[in-house]
Amino acid sequence: MRRIKLVVAYDGSTYSGWQIQPNAVTIEAVLDAAIYELTKEKIHVTGASRTDAGVHAMGNVAVFDTESTIPGSRWAYALNRYLPEDVVVQQSWEVAPDFHPRHCNTQKTYEYRILNTELPIPQLRQYTWNVSHPLDVARMQEAAQALVGEHDFKSFCCVRTQAESTIRTIYAVDVIKDEQSQIITIRIRGNGFLYNMVRIIAGTLMQVGRGKTTKQDIEEMLRKQNREVAGQTAPPQGLTLMHIDYVDNDDAEWQKCE
Amino acid sequence: MRRIKLVVAYDGSTYSGWQIQPNAVTIEAVLDAAIYELTKEKIHVTGASRTDAGVHAMGNVAVFDTESTIPGSRWAYALNRYLPEDVVVQQSWEVAPDFHPRHCNTQKTYEYRILNTELPIPQLRQYTWNVSHPLDVARMQEAAQALVGEHDFKSFCCVRTQAESTIRTIYAVDVIKDEQSQIITIRIRGNGFLYNMVRIIAGTLMQVGRGKTTKQDIEEMLRKQNREVAGQTAPPQGLTLMHIDYVDNDDAEWQKCE
Repeated sequence: MRRIKLVVAYDGSTYSGWQIQPNAVTIEAVLDAAIYELTKEKIHVTGASRTDAGVHAMGNVAVFDTESTIPGSRWAYALNRYLPEDVVVQQSWEVAPDFHPRHCNTQKTYEYRILNTELPIPQLRQYTWNVSHPLDVARMQEAAQALVGEHDFKSFCCVRTQAESTIRTIYAVDVIKDEQSQIITIRIRGNGFLYNMVRIIAGTLMQVGRGKTTKQDIEEMLRKQNREVAGQTAPPQGLTLMHIDYVDNDDAEWQKCE
Repeated sequence: MRRIKLVVAYDGSTYSGWQIQPNAVTIEAVLDAAIYELTKEKIHVTGASRTDAGVHAMGNVAVFDTESTIPGSRWAYALNRYLPEDVVVQQSWEVAPDFHPRHCNTQKTYEYRILNTELPIPQLRQYTWNVSHPLDVARMQEAAQALVGEHDFKSFCCVRTQAESTIRTIYAVDVIKDEQSQIITIRIRGNGFLYNMVRIIAGTLMQVGRGKTTKQDIEEMLRKQNREVAGQTAPPQGLTLMHIDYVDNDDAEWQKCE
């Protein structure tokens, strides 16, 4: 039995998120189905991040055990032949038999994209949140720095969370505007994110960009530990899980997992 | 009776192109339907560029005559309420009663996008042509300059063309790579384009990028005036009609039309 790690990119537009559920098409289900087509093994992949419906990924991570002798690096090509065109395995390799994608010391990077134009652009409707009110990007960038560091993010977490602790560390947040496309990207890197956390941060920073919320308000939101004080949850299609980095980018360090 | 000009953006992914045809959903048909919903007038819009199935636009132009008293600038907002989310009118205004979007002295700008990565990226599958072989962008940019100027583009035109003349002028071609996204954009501006011309140019420049075709080869292709000597027709989804500029960007100059 060998454990295989996949880096998976997908367009989440037509999926009911990552996690398998009855009567819904999910990323996990199509990966399981592709593995079955290839090997006839009935297995479930374990994902690093259970993204919501409509959320995209450039590099989510999935892990599974197999009896197949297909070399680790060949799984990407082999599975892509059985996957729909909106799910593409970008890389694959064999990992230690107790490597777990969620229990390890990881850094996750997300990007949330806002299209700041008066009217929507059709080609971007499934990949951005269209905000027609002009946003002050410098103000958003400055206020976002209040989120950096170790904080209790309870105010920035869906009340339906099952997380035992709501303390997380954000290493960096950057808000950058591309003037040509009018896309504002909120790029955020941390050791983990609570349910809806990036989308609530994006909704709150949007209010900052409109001049309705300040950096001091965000500091106050963190202190209050109450979902009702933070901003709206931005819609899912603006969110992309960019990549997940395991400690030192080196799978050999999986032993550090809790 | 007043003549209204629309600037229309659309995601062509699910459409059978611009032009109305039986048993197919086209951009022209949904615009006609939205005007009917709004005014109950049964009219056909006239488009500046009859884009193919799968081709996108940021700024195609449509014109129609109406008895409605809706002010020119309000049509964009009024029609968007009746249009599907993959077609958005970006601007509207009243023009002279004999303004015609195809007969005027225009400059059209197209962009063709190649995603130059080993594996496709799902979110870009409907907006780029994925070419996995590494392409030499400097070589493409240099060879593309052979196309600039007034030429007979018969070699770069689908044999099914109905154009009376295959002579066109290209004002500029630029091939630019964005290193972060690995997208190569071929940006081309001219006074008009033959059927499939931009896609054949893109397919030919791809061969240049692979080292199979030279600038001298392109000069030779232009001389031979034979479709068989130019490169393949690149797939439609990489193509976007960016904008159409009328003489001096001033509708008052419509009188110069032939």
